[in-house]
Amino acid sequence: MTFSSPNQPSAYTWEATNEEVAARYGVPIEDVVRFDLNTAPAPPDIAQRVMTAGQFHVSLSEYPPADYRRLVEAAAARYGVGTDELVVGAGADEILDVIAKTFLSEGSKAVLPVPTYAMFRVLTEQRGAVAVPVPRLGPGEGYAIDIPAMREAARDASLLWLCSPNNPTALPEPDGAIESLLGMIAADADAGGRPQPIVVIDEAYAEFVGRSLADLRFDHPNVIAIRTASKAYALAGLRVGFAIASRELVARMNPIRPPGSVSTVSVTVVTEALLDDDLAPSNVARVSAERDRLIAALSDAGWSVGPSVTNFVLVDLGSVDRAAAAAEALLQRGLVPRAFPDTHPLADHLRLTVRSPEQNDRLIAAARAFQAER
Amino acid sequence: MTFSSPNQPSAYTWEATNEEVAARYGVPIEDVVRFDLNTAPAPPDIAQRVMTAGQFHVSLSEYPPADYRRLVEAAAARYGVGTDELVVGAGADEILDVIAKTFLSEGSKAVLPVPTYAMFRVLTEQRGAVAVPVPRLGPGEGYAIDIPAMREAARDASLLWLCSPNNPTALPEPDGAIESLLGMIAADADAGGRPQPIVVIDEAYAEFVGRSLADLRFDHPNVIAIRTASKAYALAGLRVGFAIASRELVARMNPIRPPGSVSTVSVTVVTEALLDDDLAPSNVARVSAERDRLIAALSDAGWSVGPSVTNFVLVDLGSVDRAAAAAEALLQRGLVPRAFPDTHPLADHLRLTVRSPEQNDRLIAAARAFQAER
Repeated sequence: MTFSSPNQPSAYTWEATNEEVAARYGVPIEDVVRFDLNTAPAPPDIAQRVMTAGQFHVSLSEYPPADYRRLVEAAAARYGVGTDELVVGAGADEILDVIAKTFLSEGSKAVLPVPTYAMFRVLTEQRGAVAVPVPRLGPGEGYAIDIPAMREAARDASLLWLCSPNNPTALPEPDGAIESLLGMIAADADAGGRPQPIVVIDEAYAEFVGRSLADLRFDHPNVIAIRTASKAYALAGLRVGFAIASRELVARMNPIRPPGSVSTVSVTVVTEALLDDDLAPSNVARVSAERDRLIAALSDAGWSVGPSVTNFVLVDLGSVDRAAAAAEALLQRGLVPRAFPDTHPLADHLRLTVRSPEQNDRLIAAARAFQAER
Repeated sequence: MTFSSPNQPSAYTWEATNEEVAARYGVPIEDVVRFDLNTAPAPPDIAQRVMTAGQFHVSLSEYPPADYRRLVEAAAARYGVGTDELVVGAGADEILDVIAKTFLSEGSKAVLPVPTYAMFRVLTEQRGAVAVPVPRLGPGEGYAIDIPAMREAARDASLLWLCSPNNPTALPEPDGAIESLLGMIAADADAGGRPQPIVVIDEAYAEFVGRSLADLRFDHPNVIAIRTASKAYALAGLRVGFAIASRELVARMNPIRPPGSVSTVSVTVVTEALLDDDLAPSNVARVSAERDRLIAALSDAGWSVGPSVTNFVLVDLGSVDRAAAAAEALLQRGLVPRAFPDTHPLADHLRLTVRSPEQNDRLIAAARAFQAER
């Protein structure tokens, strides 16, 4: 569920807070569970350990280190990139904002395969640039990008917003799809004597597929990959994200990023989390097993659940009305699904985050009850 | 000292990190002291207490609450404003960025009395807008704004960036100056049938004068006041700042602010800090007493120190060369001053933060040694 912000076309939609859900549905606030945010059920223990120890990279009365040096070194080691190939932001959202500010100007065009992450359009329009939506292929083709249509739209674009695995469709682009699109774009730009558009690949869910496309930057220096501490690292509340790109693009983005938007506590905790070899893999293993159990149980309850490689699933309720009814049934139990506006291509679907076994059990019970009533 | 970022006209200048200063001047890193950032020598105890307790407003695996409700309530009570008259940002810098994005478009004009906070120009130019500098009056007039010149420049401007007390000149605008400028701007806009420009009043140092101009929003709904947890609250590392404005302007800014750029740890700690009646006043009392001691001692050493109501002082070294030599002498002891570029109106000055008694003693000794050598 979301409450729309009034009268601002290029603004995002706010998620309702726990307090708002509790008040609106008469549910005790401790019973509210967020199945709508693709977050993890609990943070890693290392967060509390670092905070209790109180040894931060600099004193909390000082500004965070302008170069986030130790965080950058940890991220470079974890992602297998150079320290000069990284930009740090207050969550991947700030990275997306920096990219929009660096590479989009008023009237320029940004291509996005839809449906996809909602902030791409918002940030594009906040720059006065034009968002060019290109419909994805259907569920039978895994919601893959439509390569010929993307190629065509890219001809006069400054930027492409890709996301793999994609949110909200829960699947990665097919092997080789982004590579071949990049090749076509390079050839077309060459033939036309134009600069290539920037190609952003949001990889917020990369750890769940155990693979990143960031190395495409070697053959395609117009590529920017995006990583985050919010998903596999289970630290969404600390707001840390990264861009991985060629030194040339990093040099263009770094002066645009705010000088110190990431808190020193977040810098220190996420440094330690990235240095921990086991943290993300064990989270991913736990979430993946629980995801497969959730898909099986929801399917068994009679819901049509799509395949997923991520920490969320997409459920096809068959009609917009039935999706709305299911959302309402979940909300009455304090379970908050991600629903989509009526005009959205997935308006007849709900997106549901994989959470703890106990929380997932509540979701499964709600799905069974919903099916039994109809 | 600052290291300039290459070839980006509208980028800010990076502060050198402690590591860079230590390496460049051969000083042990623990001897490096930042007199250039107008920060406090230590954070309040409440920060560690909250982190050790580990009770945050929401789990750190979730995104921060989209409305920052408890933080907003604490800030509203502290600043004496309505909860619907506040916008929260990742430091005052993000607030300034949101203002630029909301109210400046390509080609629009933003007026700034110079010298002033460097980010005003940077953010204006990042929007493709034009920064219109209006020189301040001289030190004899307390570097006050030139009201007739500001009025004139405001005629075709979308926004004015004011800062009181002003950084780097360390003094507030004279009583009534901003009020009378606002009246003139309103009358001129009325007479011309134009909308009034937005007038930003950055009050990062408001606690040091014990007075805010935020209530001007009642008579002048085009006013936005800015507050921060970085100065009197000594929590620069947590990155929390606020805009105070009419509900109408808040409604325009809120959809533009990133949905959750402030970490949940920062949200929780700063909430508690704002609820503490004694924290800021006792910091201000301590800093003010130490500032007066520092001014007296540096003057006694032979330096020409201007008056200050803030946590920093401005020293007139008499020439650009002598300012550079003094900066170098300080840096060789690991004491980092804020110097200004050769083209800056204060290129013959240094700005120095008031720090702990022991740190200030090192600064005083360095000033004495510098004077003795010349």
